[in-house]
Amino acid sequence: MSAFTLRAQDGAARRGTLGLTHGRVETPAFMPVGTAATVKGLAPEEIRASGAQIVLANTYHLWMRPGREIIEAAGGLHRFMSWDAPILTDSGGFQVFSLEGRRRLDEDGVTFRSHLDGSEHRFTPEGVIAFQAALGVDVAMVLDVCVKLPAEPAALSESVRLTTQWARRSRAVAPAAGTAVFAIVQGGLDARLRERSARELVELDFPGYAIGGLSVGETRAQMEETARATAALLPQAKPRYLMGVGTVRDLIAAVDCGIDLFDCVYPTRCGRNGRAMTRTGEFNIFNAAFTRDLGPIDPDCACSVCRTYSRAYLAHLFRSKEMLGPRLLSLHNVTLLNTLMHDARTAIEAGRWRAFRDGLGFER
Amino acid sequence: MSAFTLRAQDGAARRGTLGLTHGRVETPAFMPVGTAATVKGLAPEEIRASGAQIVLANTYHLWMRPGREIIEAAGGLHRFMSWDAPILTDSGGFQVFSLEGRRRLDEDGVTFRSHLDGSEHRFTPEGVIAFQAALGVDVAMVLDVCVKLPAEPAALSESVRLTTQWARRSRAVAPAAGTAVFAIVQGGLDARLRERSARELVELDFPGYAIGGLSVGETRAQMEETARATAALLPQAKPRYLMGVGTVRDLIAAVDCGIDLFDCVYPTRCGRNGRAMTRTGEFNIFNAAFTRDLGPIDPDCACSVCRTYSRAYLAHLFRSKEMLGPRLLSLHNVTLLNTLMHDARTAIEAGRWRAFRDGLGFER
Repeated sequence: MSAFTLRAQDGAARRGTLGLTHGRVETPAFMPVGTAATVKGLAPEEIRASGAQIVLANTYHLWMRPGREIIEAAGGLHRFMSWDAPILTDSGGFQVFSLEGRRRLDEDGVTFRSHLDGSEHRFTPEGVIAFQAALGVDVAMVLDVCVKLPAEPAALSESVRLTTQWARRSRAVAPAAGTAVFAIVQGGLDARLRERSARELVELDFPGYAIGGLSVGETRAQMEETARATAALLPQAKPRYLMGVGTVRDLIAAVDCGIDLFDCVYPTRCGRNGRAMTRTGEFNIFNAAFTRDLGPIDPDCACSVCRTYSRAYLAHLFRSKEMLGPRLLSLHNVTLLNTLMHDARTAIEAGRWRAFRDGLGFER
Repeated sequence: MSAFTLRAQDGAARRGTLGLTHGRVETPAFMPVGTAATVKGLAPEEIRASGAQIVLANTYHLWMRPGREIIEAAGGLHRFMSWDAPILTDSGGFQVFSLEGRRRLDEDGVTFRSHLDGSEHRFTPEGVIAFQAALGVDVAMVLDVCVKLPAEPAALSESVRLTTQWARRSRAVAPAAGTAVFAIVQGGLDARLRERSARELVELDFPGYAIGGLSVGETRAQMEETARATAALLPQAKPRYLMGVGTVRDLIAAVDCGIDLFDCVYPTRCGRNGRAMTRTGEFNIFNAAFTRDLGPIDPDCACSVCRTYSRAYLAHLFRSKEMLGPRLLSLHNVTLLNTLMHDARTAIEAGRWRAFRDGLGFER
């Protein structure tokens, strides 16, 4: 199931509730990424405590390892990874199209070699939906055709054509009752292609729409322009998901464009590498000054890490290559984004989104 | 403070309570090792939930990094690492004497070069006690002289002489009120040297005694023989600590010898490497069969990991090189040893230690 209720709007910013099989997601919401059925370094109870309402996993990675059979035998992905709230799986399109020289696209699907062992696999729109439905996830994404930017207009146009074609086939598949299928708008930075992609997909009446092909190297202004224009083409009554966005600044910009859902490995990748996120900027915990800094990672953060440990202790853990460092900093970073989204929801409800947005102090 | 109460005895096995500044330790007890002020991979609340009552840290490692100054500024090691129960620090003698070719022993102390940056440092008995007292730990260990086995009788004898000499100087230092100083019996596998070492140290009337220089490559029979004989030479009214012991089998043998405290990196090192401990044996989570095994790591274990995750999920995490795998398996292994010690305490209290010991099924 997927039932979206738009509760409030302030400018383009939206406050909604997305009802999914395993629970509700109050939007706007950041979705931490658990590519391989684990949000790197964090246990499910911590992810929940961080304020996350839904996590991502990845079809490509789970297809390769551990494979469908064992996840089904475990009773689905929720039981396998011990996460009882909603899960959204990306279709793996992005990953497969990244395998340059190792994949062959045809009208019907894409054949590729695994990055793990070189074995050959084939993704079709129907196969990818069936896989995600077998995992029992709340939201399955259609297999889309991703083009590396910059791309020739003809290649971009072809990717939009095939993405719609595949979306139509995905829509025709009747997935398991519990799994809603979201479509993905493509079209690069080309406004007319985005419009065509959105229009064709909206005609197919999906329960939700993602904007793909952004946050892949374009400028912030380009991303925001395309996200804003594309969001405006999507139905008010359906959730909108901007794929691959995960910095404070990008999240705020995207909420401002009318986006409801976001995902990115950014906060956990930063956490593993010693990069601490705050609302006002990021810093590297390896900087010498932090070895003697007994303050919390982020004085404005109420997460368990900031309440419990000092920058000096985190700096010590990272310098000593201790696992606890990446773990704690990942938890802080994820909590930071979830708390940011919580406060964004409150601001939109209260009709003070602009003040909240501008109060964060990013130049616009 | 250090106040030991012997509550029950069954054969040589002892059931006691060790009162320390930051709380009580019911013995026999396993002490997880947090060398660099972190039990690798685990957060303090997990360590506590594992049944651990006290953790170790290491003087050598903390001296090198992050150094005394920042730990003192943080308000001591407890606050620095956010662990409010007792802490015991090893003196670093074992680590310094492992720096072969990089250390120079004299009557007064030992000069060595750091394994991190080659900088020169000097440990004296007084300096090492002062460092540990500055950290505010509950139990500080004396600086002892460790000899690599097999050793010439003269070298072994000299190490015992100097260990006593240094223990005398350590005893003369008045440490911070909250820190109790334990001595370390040396003497290798030589019964007469062990006897001499124990006698000389007991005369100095320490609040606790460790048996050092074992679990360094000798056979299990040799270790047990020496531990048993040495334990018998130590005062009934003082806690006894066998250093470096951490397998199920060795813990049971040591309790049977009348030992009260143990420490080892073994359960966390195994956990990081995919080696699962159970009371009846160990196994490697990388074995192919586990990729499809939906049972818990240890069907006889009630820890949060065994209640929550399957062998198949753990196998997947390890194969995917996901941090959560080492973390969860370390937590299981540490919990296993703490629960084993809990059950040993109950058995000794109930006068059924032998049945408990024999019920574990190790050939004797």
